[in-house]
Amino acid sequence: MLGVCYYPEHWPEDWWADDATAMRAAGITYVRIAEFAWSRIEPEPGRFDWAWLDRAIGVLGGAGLRVVMCTPTATPPKWLIDREPSILPTDENGRTRGFGSRRHTGFSSEAWIRESRRITEAVAGRYGDNQAVAGWQIDNEFGCHDTVLSYGPEDLRAFQAWLGRRYGSIGRLNEAWGTVFWSAELRSFAEVSLPVGAVTETAPAARMDFRRFSSDQVRAYCRMQADILRAHSPGRFVTHNFMGRFTGFDHHAVGEELDFATWDSYPLGFTDQFPFGDAERAPFIETGHPDMAAFHHDLYRGIGRGRFWIMEQQPGPVNWADWNPVPKPGMVRLWTWEAFAHGAEVVSYFRWRQCPFAQEQMHAGLHRPNRSVSAGGKEALQVAAELRSAGTLPASTQAPVALVFDYEAAWMLDIQPQGKDFNYIEMCFRWYEMARRLGQDVDIVASGASLAGYRTVLAPTLPHLSEAGLAALSATEATVLIGPRTGSRSVDFSIPDGLPPGPLRSMLPMQVVDVGSLRPGLSHPVTGKFAGRAIRWREWIETDADVTARFHDGSPAVVEGGRYVYLACWPDAALLEAALRHVLPAGGLGLTELPAGVRLRHRGELCFAFNYGPEPWTLPDHLVRTLVMGHPVVEPQDFACWRVAV
Amino acid sequence: MLGVCYYPEHWPEDWWADDATAMRAAGITYVRIAEFAWSRIEPEPGRFDWAWLDRAIGVLGGAGLRVVMCTPTATPPKWLIDREPSILPTDENGRTRGFGSRRHTGFSSEAWIRESRRITEAVAGRYGDNQAVAGWQIDNEFGCHDTVLSYGPEDLRAFQAWLGRRYGSIGRLNEAWGTVFWSAELRSFAEVSLPVGAVTETAPAARMDFRRFSSDQVRAYCRMQADILRAHSPGRFVTHNFMGRFTGFDHHAVGEELDFATWDSYPLGFTDQFPFGDAERAPFIETGHPDMAAFHHDLYRGIGRGRFWIMEQQPGPVNWADWNPVPKPGMVRLWTWEAFAHGAEVVSYFRWRQCPFAQEQMHAGLHRPNRSVSAGGKEALQVAAELRSAGTLPASTQAPVALVFDYEAAWMLDIQPQGKDFNYIEMCFRWYEMARRLGQDVDIVASGASLAGYRTVLAPTLPHLSEAGLAALSATEATVLIGPRTGSRSVDFSIPDGLPPGPLRSMLPMQVVDVGSLRPGLSHPVTGKFAGRAIRWREWIETDADVTARFHDGSPAVVEGGRYVYLACWPDAALLEAALRHVLPAGGLGLTELPAGVRLRHRGELCFAFNYGPEPWTLPDHLVRTLVMGHPVVEPQDFACWRVAV
Amino acid sequence: MLGVCYYPEHWPEDWWADDATAMRAAGITYVRIAEFAWSRIEPEPGRFDWAWLDRAIGVLGGAGLRVVMCTPTATPPKWLIDREPSILPTDENGRTRGFGSRRHTGFSSEAWIRESRRITEAVAGRYGDNQAVAGWQIDNEFGCHDTVLSYGPEDLRAFQAWLGRRYGSIGRLNEAWGTVFWSAELRSFAEVSLPVGAVTETAPAARMDFRRFSSDQVRAYCRMQADILRAHSPGRFVTHNFMGRFTGFDHHAVGEELDFATWDSYPLGFTDQFPFGDAERAPFIETGHPDMAAFHHDLYRGIGRGRFWIMEQQPGPVNWADWNPVPKPGMVRLWTWEAFAHGAEVVSYFRWRQCPFAQEQMHAGLHRPNRSVSAGGKEALQVAAELRSAGTLPASTQAPVALVFDYEAAWMLDIQPQGKDFNYIEMCFRWYEMARRLGQDVDIVASGASLAGYRTVLAPTLPHLSEAGLAALSATEATVLIGPRTGSRSVDFSIPDGLPPGPLRSMLPMQVVDVGSLRPGLSHPVTGKFAGRAIRWREWIETDADVTARFHDGSPAVVEGGRYVYLACWPDAALLEAALRHVLPAGGLGLTELPAGVRLRHRGELCFAFNYGPEPWTLPDHLVRTLVMGHPVVEPQDFACWRVAV
Ligand SMILES: [Zn+2]
Ligand SMILES: [Zn+2]
Ligand SMILES: [Zn+2]
Repeated sequence: MLGVCYYPEHWPEDWWADDATAMRAAGITYVRIAEFAWSRIEPEPGRFDWAWLDRAIGVLGGAGLRVVMCTPTATPPKWLIDREPSILPTDENGRTRGFGSRRHTGFSSEAWIRESRRITEAVAGRYGDNQAVAGWQIDNEFGCHDTVLSYGPEDLRAFQAWLGRRYGSIGRLNEAWGTVFWSAELRSFAEVSLPVGAVTETAPAARMDFRRFSSDQVRAYCRMQADILRAHSPGRFVTHNFMGRFTGFDHHAVGEELDFATWDSYPLGFTDQFPFGDAERAPFIETGHPDMAAFHHDLYRGIGRGRFWIMEQQPGPVNWADWNPVPKPGMVRLWTWEAFAHGAEVVSYFRWRQCPFAQEQMHAGLHRPNRSVSAGGKEALQVAAELRSAGTLPASTQAPVALVFDYEAAWMLDIQPQGKDFNYIEMCFRWYEMARRLGQDVDIVASGASLAGYRTVLAPTLPHLSEAGLAALSATEATVLIGPRTGSRSVDFSIPDGLPPGPLRSMLPMQVVDVGSLRPGLSHPVTGKFAGRAIRWREWIETDADVTARFHDGSPAVVEGGRYVYLACWPDAALLEAALRHVLPAGGLGLTELPAGVRLRHRGELCFAFNYGPEPWTLPDHLVRTLVMGHPVVEPQDFACWRVAV
Repeated sequence: MLGVCYYPEHWPEDWWADDATAMRAAGITYVRIAEFAWSRIEPEPGRFDWAWLDRAIGVLGGAGLRVVMCTPTATPPKWLIDREPSILPTDENGRTRGFGSRRHTGFSSEAWIRESRRITEAVAGRYGDNQAVAGWQIDNEFGCHDTVLSYGPEDLRAFQAWLGRRYGSIGRLNEAWGTVFWSAELRSFAEVSLPVGAVTETAPAARMDFRRFSSDQVRAYCRMQADILRAHSPGRFVTHNFMGRFTGFDHHAVGEELDFATWDSYPLGFTDQFPFGDAERAPFIETGHPDMAAFHHDLYRGIGRGRFWIMEQQPGPVNWADWNPVPKPGMVRLWTWEAFAHGAEVVSYFRWRQCPFAQEQMHAGLHRPNRSVSAGGKEALQVAAELRSAGTLPASTQAPVALVFDYEAAWMLDIQPQGKDFNYIEMCFRWYEMARRLGQDVDIVASGASLAGYRTVLAPTLPHLSEAGLAALSATEATVLIGPRTGSRSVDFSIPDGLPPGPLRSMLPMQVVDVGSLRPGLSHPVTGKFAGRAIRWREWIETDADVTARFHDGSPAVVEGGRYVYLACWPDAALLEAALRHVLPAGGLGLTELPAGVRLRHRGELCFAFNYGPEPWTLPDHLVRTLVMGHPVVEPQDFACWRVAV
Repeated sequence: MLGVCYYPEHWPEDWWADDATAMRAAGITYVRIAEFAWSRIEPEPGRFDWAWLDRAIGVLGGAGLRVVMCTPTATPPKWLIDREPSILPTDENGRTRGFGSRRHTGFSSEAWIRESRRITEAVAGRYGDNQAVAGWQIDNEFGCHDTVLSYGPEDLRAFQAWLGRRYGSIGRLNEAWGTVFWSAELRSFAEVSLPVGAVTETAPAARMDFRRFSSDQVRAYCRMQADILRAHSPGRFVTHNFMGRFTGFDHHAVGEELDFATWDSYPLGFTDQFPFGDAERAPFIETGHPDMAAFHHDLYRGIGRGRFWIMEQQPGPVNWADWNPVPKPGMVRLWTWEAFAHGAEVVSYFRWRQCPFAQEQMHAGLHRPNRSVSAGGKEALQVAAELRSAGTLPASTQAPVALVFDYEAAWMLDIQPQGKDFNYIEMCFRWYEMARRLGQDVDIVASGASLAGYRTVLAPTLPHLSEAGLAALSATEATVLIGPRTGSRSVDFSIPDGLPPGPLRSMLPMQVVDVGSLRPGLSHPVTGKFAGRAIRWREWIETDADVTARFHDGSPAVVEGGRYVYLACWPDAALLEAALRHVLPAGGLGLTELPAGVRLRHRGELCFAFNYGPEPWTLPDHLVRTLVMGHPVVEPQDFACWRVAV
């Protein structure tokens, strides 16, 4: 189903009815509203103006649209900030981050939590049982603009309290943080300071706890709103729209507070920002990288425990990347269908109409500011028609490949990269990309979640391997490819007693005795079962297990123990491909040879092929017979869909 | 005529008479003094020491020099700052910018305005009717070191008051800024905050108003001083020395307060700082780019309403660029003559003698610290001799080509580049450069100024096309080449109702329906009447007008309507050249084929050729007969001048 | 002899005895302890816990180890900072640099000086006459993490007082700083502000004085501790462990407070950070650049007036560079022997065992966290064995080549580079490197130190040539190669009256009349006795002396006067090599042709060859006969040593 983001407050009231009618005519089911409307809802302290919003919901609901109602907490109004300046967050230099844009709020501000409760109660009370309201979006894009971490006095007090709960005694904290190291031993929790602004780096365990604390604050804030909404609005779903490429808080944890996940898909913006090399990005500047949206679909399907929407789908150029190209013709349709192929229940475009004023005036919509239909709008209409003929799509089923993704891993490697280019999300993306280039469907799952039923499991790295994470890896019957640094840290960010890979040594009898980061230009060749080169990171291993590939100096590069395969480096593309060409078939999976820009994805008995590349791709003959959508020759920016035996 | 900048306070008093005599002997007419002399003029609060300055002016005037007297407001002394610390400006991080260099003053500080009045009254009162004083320079290089914008409490109060005057009611401001967008609606002007320091970007219209306000504050400050000077010093000119490459305030507006404009010409420093590519800069590192000084001459001639001086001419290496080369032999002479060719009335060198101490000790002068004549000094002597034989130069006449330059455009594109490399002044420079490579003289005129009498008008971009700007474009009989983004914004920084090019649609019936910024490496080919490639920026247009070139996908790249030609992209060099090879002849202009480093310029019946390139350039035979200066073969770093029929 | 850094407080007490025994068995003589142990020594204000440290010293001393005891002032504990927050330093933006790492102290804080005295008295009182204590290390790595300069109110007061002592009257300061230049004249020392945070650059002489003042504060702080230690601990040495690549304070001056110098040698970290080009760094990423450690050995041997130790020797990968590779096999041994070859008395590894927790957990030790011996540890054992068979090494003798190194030069060129890539330490390193590539031993000596006995002296640049510096240059009988900018500044940072090279004109009758910095890509060819190109910097000279090489335009590039050779540019590698191939033989020295990665070094009658390169190097036949260590073919990462006639 399709949805759209709409801002009645941005348009003359006499446009609303036409807009609502046009939405329905365009095949749109859901309309999201009001996430930035606080100053209209409560124009003065305590004086609520519901009338306009009542009418807007009335018009939309009356047209048969189902409303996704939002809490407006991403943008508290100026009068509130002036009354309660402690709401404002503090940056890492100790400066207050001011009013004038959005997310000017700290998750540990008591005034902010109190005011958030108040406005959530008000909105939920007003619309909780409104028939047009299908469900709720809490706030908007937690963490956007680096807003998870705040460094003010209330943040410190909340952190001290959190540490008190975590450690019980200051002695236990001193031990966990290793404060003896630089004479940083503390006598009480009140002596704790924020791990920022010091002369050089602060203790990694302290920084890690600050990340955990900050993530917990996001979750608590989300739960606070969810509880209110569920109390006032029974039978409606509660969700949040996550962003792409964010690792600032544990999305798996926040996802547990929601009925399903939604995310905001901007393939061109993310492709502009991702650390691709220039040559690699070039062919995909105007299409998005072929794994960019897909990676997030598979990630958020996991975070939503199988259920997700696209709450904001890029419908044309955006305004916030360094460069903002126009998508190539067909891409808006392709992205939409790709989301469905990956299991999205709803794709909701951001936004119905480009706003001619304010910060996002260069962000396209389905309509232009002059009410004409945009290029993306026309593609959305085509999708709507195609959806009608396609009928109900089959349910998504578990993929054969799992990639283990862990937000704590992202924080640990951010705190301690040890080599400047050791970037966690890039690493996971590379592994994901290679699996998909070989034709695989991939589930991205949390560390600790069950790995039952998978044929091959990819664990690019899990520096702290939790007990649950270890248990899942132990229990799976899949072939498991494990990357470097796995098991290299305790929960307290220290090196495990028996050296890395720590608890993994129960499956792989080995010790990592040395590690080195490799500057760009430096690489170490690997030969054996897999060949290629180590870049960025390499380990030295002592082991009695099978060594199936070695570095040029004879030291183990790949260690195997039963179905566990350990790769002792950041692999270049050749080595990564060689590794996957081994572990996927070892799990019983067939590989498909695809051009660089083509990707496959199954949804139930349907298989889709999406062509991001510059050349047409011809379907193998045997697939043509079951073609459901598209043509035997899949043109650039087009897709095909056929039925397969399940 | 020649001038020089002199600092009697830097030298022993017994050198002054020799210096003055030597200036006269060197053919110098004007001597600028005292712009940094406050601490000598008023060494203690309220105690003025005029004696030394009386004697200095006496010596200089006595030698027959005409004094350009300055107000010393670029450097208030420490005792004043200690008494009135609110004078200090505030940076965008909220930090006070301290004492110890220059321009440590905020244009909205009431204490500063009061003290500026006081010192200006004092200096003007003392020297207003001094016979040696020919005129006045107000302050020094407004805006230098990023000093137009200040973010302190007084700046906020003045901004609120300015907004009150501009909008009358807060409702009108809310509408203009689009505050409804992110719940930023304000209830009173007192709720306005400075558009800085927010979590992410603030409203573009708010930022635009802050730029306008800040520019107005510069103008008001300049007018305050001009009024005092005119009251005390009848019959003397009042001017200001502008800098190169500055767009922080509206120079056209400030220019209206002056009798003529002057500017400070540092071709090598500016060439080091300009965003040239390395290969492009390389041949001109030691000569300056051949359009660098010329562009500014033509700009400031417009700002001075036909009249301008060089107040500071680079005489050798400077101290402030990242790299500071020695000019090639001949360049100081060439730059001086080039200024005259572009209509300068006076070229004044900075400075008479290199100062052996303090911040600018690495800045060359006409003399070295040991009183010997520098290489640049020798070239200045040669210029003086040449000027004597040349006699009075003819008056400058209107050029056949106008380039429309708009400071508001610079602010809008700075606030909303949409592609990281969309740089306004670079764009204008590129268009100017190409016209001059094809042999044209160019006037750089303000948007809204009359375009009567021009044959070809170049408008690289005018995002907000004002009524006056539109009227001038409508009224001209010239062929007009208009660049992308023109007419794309209302005065309130919003997209016009009928889509871009907004009011330009009266001349060009078209709509820009999509725009995309193109990352380096991405370009779109253009074919048709003009061929080349779009880089950095491209538009998608729907039109019934003539389309004379198209992008590879068939979408219009060039739209023509009568004498108006719209170019829907940032052109690469080939496309820009092709466009100018069309619109210049279309305006009736002949093109001259010149090597990359040679430029022509007419002044009355004289035509000059300046050779910045590495190869000699041979004059066409028919010009040799009327040669006035130079030789038929123009050597590198040399020029020739001949007489043409007018 | 060998040493090691040990932290009993990091390990269970029941490991201590085994560790001590293992140290002795590993051939270790010295053990450094307690430099970060304040919070264990004084866990509460005024309550000292000596027991554990008494026992630790007892165990170590009992095993026959000699203890290097440290003052723990690099890491004052949290309770002290909470009581005396004025201890914290202030950064250049005026922000307090907080607790949580190390060196969170300002050298001008009165509270800090008082507390430092107190803890130093306490530790020295307790252990001053302990039989196990061989000597003292004061603090740890002065200046690490940019901690020489601090910008708080106490820094200002101390600076004002220092200026009062330096200048006596404010008039003299105004003259020295040239405050008349931008109206910055001061009426009293109380009006002085810190030369930071101004709108643009502050007076270079003011900044220079702030550097001198700050350096003096480091020295005074060091002397304060040294006096206490000497009073309490007669017969023990007092030293400090300097870092590599630091020029923030005058190490020669601080060295005068010490019995000898020690430094912390991290060849891979420094090679990662040094401004090498990528291609140049590539072959040495895993070995260190072949001159990196050597340059510092020769520098610190000078600072220690002939005596130095390595207090911290890299034993494997470190944690603090952008990339941290594993040293190639053999390098730990090679670095250790290279230190001895350069005259080190002791090489002390950092650290005995890698710490599994806190900030440096990725820093290797001689042992892994699990108590196994690391690769570096095995090499250290090999060195110990080799040392035993080698017996006492001969004394180091004066090298035939001196390179003059001046910390004031580093500050001057940092304050006024005039070309962005004019980096003092890089320049000196380049000259040093070329001399060593030609087979020379080099002493790095302070400007003003005696140059008697040298054959060739290299003075890359000495902007301010002090009287003592001039006298040493005058007195030497060596051939002297002098680089550009020498003598270009007075002690007050002004251009000398007779132009540069100022006082050097007594030896070289010449004047530098123009100087230019050359952007990357711009170079000026030099031909004559030496050929090559000027890069980065070039001078124009007028002279009656011999000109033995000229720039392409005929201007002198090399001026000779007797044994003084002046090079008027930053030479590229070819020109530098040509210059050294002249001045070394001119001083009577023979050159040795070596591969790019091989270096020689004499210690008494021993000569060593170290092979950092990728190819084996074969000793000339005649040397093989006197081989003492190693083989006639010196493999990569290996060395040889032979006996020579002295
Ligand atoms: Zn969004
Ligand atoms: Zn100037
Ligand atoms: Zn250290």
